[in-house]
Order: sequence, then C-alpha cells, then structure tokens
Amino acid sequence: MKEATLVQGAEPVAIPGYDYGRPSAAHSPLSLEELRQLEQTVGWSEQDARVLRHHEQFFREHAEEMVDSWRAAIGSQPHLVKWFFGPDGKRDAEYAAKVKKRFVQWVIDVSVRAHDQAWLDYQEEIGLRHTPDKKNQTDGAHTLPRVPLRYLFGFIPVVTLGTRRFFLNLGLSAEELQKLEDAWAKAVLLHVTLWSRPYAKDGLW
Amino acid sequence: MKEATLVQGAEPVAIPGYDYGRPSAAHSPLSLEELRQLEQTVGWSEQDARVLRHHEQFFREHAEEMVDSWRAAIGSQPHLVKWFFGPDGKRDAEYAAKVKKRFVQWVIDVSVRAHDQAWLDYQEEIGLRHTPDKKNQTDGAHTLPRVPLRYLFGFIPVVTLGTRRFFLNLGLSAEELQKLEDAWAKAVLLHVTLWSRPYAKDGLW
Repeated sequence: MKEATLVQGAEPVAIPGYDYGRPSAAHSPLSLEELRQLEQTVGWSEQDARVLRHHEQFFREHAEEMVDSWRAAIGSQPHLVKWFFGPDGKRDAEYAAKVKKRFVQWVIDVSVRAHDQAWLDYQEEIGLRHTPDKKNQTDGAHTLPRVPLRYLFGFIPVVTLGTRRFFLNLGLSAEELQKLEDAWAKAVLLHVTLWSRPYAKDGLW
Repeated sequence: MKEATLVQGAEPVAIPGYDYGRPSAAHSPLSLEELRQLEQTVGWSEQDARVLRHHEQFFREHAEEMVDSWRAAIGSQPHLVKWFFGPDGKRDAEYAAKVKKRFVQWVIDVSVRAHDQAWLDYQEEIGLRHTPDKKNQTDGAHTLPRVPLRYLFGFIPVVTLGTRRFFLNLGLSAEELQKLEDAWAKAVLLHVTLWSRPYAKDGLW
C-alpha cells in the first residue's frame, strides 16, 4: 500500500508555514463535486495521477533544482522579482528563502498528493498567500502585497515546458516522456487555476 | 512581404461581431511595455511567432475542425455546456453558431496576427465577452452571463494537448513538432491570460 502511505504525506522535516491538512489553512469554497468537474475540464485522469506518483522519487530528488531554475527565471526579470521586494526596494532574501522551502515541497506534493479536501483547502491557502489577504502574513514579511494574476498564469510555461530538460534525464521512451509531460502540465494548470480563486470578482470564478 | 500582408489581416468574409481593429472593440488597460513583460514571462519569442505563421495555411484549413473538437469536449460536459444555455434552460444554438465563427477566426488570428495594440485591445474585448460586461451583448443573446474563470483556464489543455493530433498530420520531425506545440501552448496561455483581466479584482491582475 505504498500509495496510501504517500497520500497521508507526513513530511519528516517540519516546514514553517506549511499548513497542509491543518485547521490553520483556509477552507476552499469549491465543493469536491465542483473540483471533479474542473478536473474533468482539464482532462485530469487517474492515469495522470499514477504517472506523477510513479516518478515520486525523481520529483523528491530534483524538486529543489527545479525550483532553483524557476527562481532564476524570476530573478532575471525585474517585473517578476519585484514582488519579492521589501519596503527598502530590495529583494527580501529571508522571505524568499522561507517561501522556497514550501515551493520545493509543493513540487513533491504535486507528484504524490491525492486531490482530497485537505489538498483542495491548501490550494486555496496558497492562492491567498499570493494576494493581499495573506501574502507576507505567514512569514511576517513586508514585501509587496500581491503577485499579479497575469504573472501567476504567465509563468506556467516556465514550470511546464521549462521542466522538460529535467524529465529528459529519466531516459524514458518518447511515449512515456509525453505522458509525464502531459500529466505534469495538467497538474500545474489545475493547481494555478485553483490559486486564482481569491483574485476573481464575486461570482466570476 | 508576405508577413506584412498577413499582419494587416483583413478577412475576405465579414464575421458579425468580429471587431478586431475597430473602435467598437474595448481598449486594453495594459500598456504595450507591460505586454512585452508578460510575453517575456511566458517565454514567448519571435521564433514562436514565426513557427505559427509558418503554418498559417494549416491553421486556416483546420481551424474549424479544431473548434469542432473543442466544442465536442464542451458539449460532453454539462458544467461547461450550461454557459450556452438560454432562459429556457436549453443550449442557444444560434448564439453558439455566431460565437463559433469568431472562435474559428481566433485560431487563424493566433497563427498570424502581430501582437500590436489592435491585437491587445481585441484580447480585452474577448475577455469582456466572457463576463457580464459583454457576454450576450454582441449577439443579442440571453445566455447565462458569464463563463467562470476556472473553466476558461481549466479548458486550456483541451486546446493545447488536445490539438496535438491535428499537428501530427503535418508530418513534421519530432523537433519541429515540439517547436510548434510549444509555440501554440505559449500563445494559447498568453491569450487566455489576457482574457482573464476583466475577471480580476481591482489591482490584482
């Protein structure tokens, strides 16, 4: 029952602010039935979940390297890195380091977590942490209070297409590689779509 | 100067409500400088634009078939098709037919249009036509007044990954196919991200 163990997903090292499955995390206004409808829209399937879980070890080993590559893309674009700036107009390295640990854990979670109520609630929490509702709150930081929605979505190809080079190291067949890329692309889109909830005007999400 | 002709892009048959480049289209609040920053975020490049333009004829010939395949995906999911419903609780076929012509034209536009002010403005217009601001207005229809943001984004894999089977008919090398798929994926994401503008709360987009 390897999967069941994974799904419970207790991580050995506690990450500050990683409130997955805790009452301190937000509650998603989306019902599980509505989540299934959204998954169907995305084309997310049990096969996709299996493909990602199958590569759990790979994601665990490379999650930090992936995040570093995405952070490099952010760091090279002033309009992206500015959302890490504190009141002194400089990048808040302490905040960035705290967020990074959760970002790395997110990669692992994408590969192993079941899409249950705890997972759904934590996506709402992550979304809120990109908006004035909760950005900075978790880490007691004073960076600019939002990441604009257009950058949240605009960054997706870096995290999907840009991650192909990591997947290539797995030495998969073309068909298996495609399945992994597609599963990852659908998963990332599903997550970011859930994160967009607090950005939307009432009734439009 | 083939590209210059394409970029001017006058279509031989007038499509009702297709206000591309007309004063009746909305004006995007995004500046061209901010658009370039968003393109950079997405990883959109001149090479991507060239790849899509190179396949203009393919897109012209298959645009309707692609839209039909996406419409089939919508039609098979009650939570998606309902946004075409009129006050009688049935799919408004006349509205769907009118929108379809513009949807087909959109596919062609993605492949050939330069990302200039007219293009940017028309993306704002398309976004508005998915929200209570302008849905129904163009066609004098009475369907439900929005397409929820989560479905706008959630549907992206159908339009990207789901379109691979059309691209396969081009008989491209694996490398060329990948370039086309990546360019298409980035283009679609960029468009839908721009369409999300009217959905966002003030200051959060």
